[in-house]
Amino acid sequence: MTDSGSPVLIGLDWGTTSLRAYCIGETGTVMERISSPAGILADHPDGFAGTFRAVTAPWRDRFGPLPVIASGMIGSRNGWIETPYVDAPASLGDFAQGLVPVETPGGGPVHFVPGLSCTDSAGTPDIMRGEEVQILGALSGGDLAADETATALFLLPGTHSKWAGVRNGAIVWFETYMTGEVFSVLMDHSILGKLAAPGGDPSTEVFSRAVEVSLNGDGSILHRAFSARTLPLFERLEPKDIPAHLSGLLIGEEVRAALGREGSGGKPAVTIAGRGDLAQAYARALEIAGVASAFAPDDVAARGHFILAEAGELIT
Amino acid sequence: MTDSGSPVLIGLDWGTTSLRAYCIGETGTVMERISSPAGILADHPDGFAGTFRAVTAPWRDRFGPLPVIASGMIGSRNGWIETPYVDAPASLGDFAQGLVPVETPGGGPVHFVPGLSCTDSAGTPDIMRGEEVQILGALSGGDLAADETATALFLLPGTHSKWAGVRNGAIVWFETYMTGEVFSVLMDHSILGKLAAPGGDPSTEVFSRAVEVSLNGDGSILHRAFSARTLPLFERLEPKDIPAHLSGLLIGEEVRAALGREGSGGKPAVTIAGRGDLAQAYARALEIAGVASAFAPDDVAARGHFILAEAGELIT
Repeated sequence: MTDSGSPVLIGLDWGTTSLRAYCIGETGTVMERISSPAGILADHPDGFAGTFRAVTAPWRDRFGPLPVIASGMIGSRNGWIETPYVDAPASLGDFAQGLVPVETPGGGPVHFVPGLSCTDSAGTPDIMRGEEVQILGALSGGDLAADETATALFLLPGTHSKWAGVRNGAIVWFETYMTGEVFSVLMDHSILGKLAAPGGDPSTEVFSRAVEVSLNGDGSILHRAFSARTLPLFERLEPKDIPAHLSGLLIGEEVRAALGREGSGGKPAVTIAGRGDLAQAYARALEIAGVASAFAPDDVAARGHFILAEAGELIT
Repeated sequence: MTDSGSPVLIGLDWGTTSLRAYCIGETGTVMERISSPAGILADHPDGFAGTFRAVTAPWRDRFGPLPVIASGMIGSRNGWIETPYVDAPASLGDFAQGLVPVETPGGGPVHFVPGLSCTDSAGTPDIMRGEEVQILGALSGGDLAADETATALFLLPGTHSKWAGVRNGAIVWFETYMTGEVFSVLMDHSILGKLAAPGGDPSTEVFSRAVEVSLNGDGSILHRAFSARTLPLFERLEPKDIPAHLSGLLIGEEVRAALGREGSGGKPAVTIAGRGDLAQAYARALEIAGVASAFAPDDVAARGHFILAEAGELIT
């Protein structure tokens, strides 16, 4: 995974609660990495520029000046600078053309990736910042020529998960689901969390059964969620399993809606860009829905930074 | 509205956060009423029996011993006694038969109304305590003989709203929607409330447009709710209107699902048992959905207590 030559690029995946910095080699692989809790909500005594210089100093000291690309919420209103949104459908070239360079004293220019927006049939806007780079990176992970012509569905799990449809190398639509945040506020602040008890591993069986209920349900999650209250009252759900049940209901609801987005006929395979328990839970829910899924390679953000730097002629 | 004769019954609508006591005359109308914040979550230094005696003492002192009927969460695990649930379909006679008498020293017997449970096609239970008495009361409000044979849809707005289908005088199904509580936790604890600003009256136009989006939407509210974040970011929704927008999305989602419960063919008129802004908001949402609605008469709980007392032969 490590280039033998010199690094050619620094990539910053700079989100709300974390900063991931990549030192990227000439074939696009990650040579070194730094993970920091210095997300945009953290304290930045010397500003974002100061944090950037401090975090990347070891690399710039050893390797000299390197082009820098930054993506994520760092390019939002509450970040370093607010970059405009590119409107979907958008391809690698559109993002490269939209790069916003900012000079930093003592750190060289940082090229900010624009965000992505889209508008649904009801005229409602949606937005992402950072995930678009991961999707571009995941697209380039395999045989780029083949991916350019295929239809692909991407899922990026998280507090706000994103689903995106990609055709001909362009992100043609995407949707944000507040599933993770809704789970948290219901568990922490609603009546549903009141009966929950800690203890043991989350039950895969309970999760899966709840996913099925939501996949098959044609009512509303506003009603279905109440079963996290009634089932324990009837002693048909153990207090320790309430989180798994509610999580299954919510993720099942999301998967049902997101798969329906592409029309009832198609069930394309889904590429999941993510790791850990949450990504595994989505993979399980997709399996229950009869849809194949695969995990994107590691470091899709860094790979996205690399191909953007190539397309933007920051590296040659 | 006031019987000229002597009172025949005390009715207690005793919920989580309030106690409404009714002194009921011989034709079922409310002669006097007492509203108290002494819901079951309040402090009861002399127990529930003590609170009952204190609240109803003026009536019992003046009118002598009267039969007493109590409904609501007072009959739950955290209440005075836990009454069993009657399973739907359930009619007036079933509830009358299920009345649970409890002797109270110095206060005479209190007859507790059982709760109502039902099970949906997925085998998931649902429950209500108190609303069933309001539905029975609303049914009896007009021409009882006609209502006995008609199909009717009832809506009881609240933190957890209830929809119920009534046929041949029996509650045949019902569903709980957590709409009000989901609204509160999203506004108070999620990112959606962060941009909201106080100010001015809630916009009816904003509410109505959001209702339409959810009525027509075939995706998920987990996605749709995110527009309460994106629309203000694009300056297409004023911060002061975020609550009206989110409320419209959620109530529209509930109305869509609840009306769908009866099948896509039927759009029966809905009787709303409730008053105030929330009930008005539901009436507006139903109007947008092309469904007629009417408000139940006042005091449907007391009317329900009265006909239950008749059916249970507590009064003659």
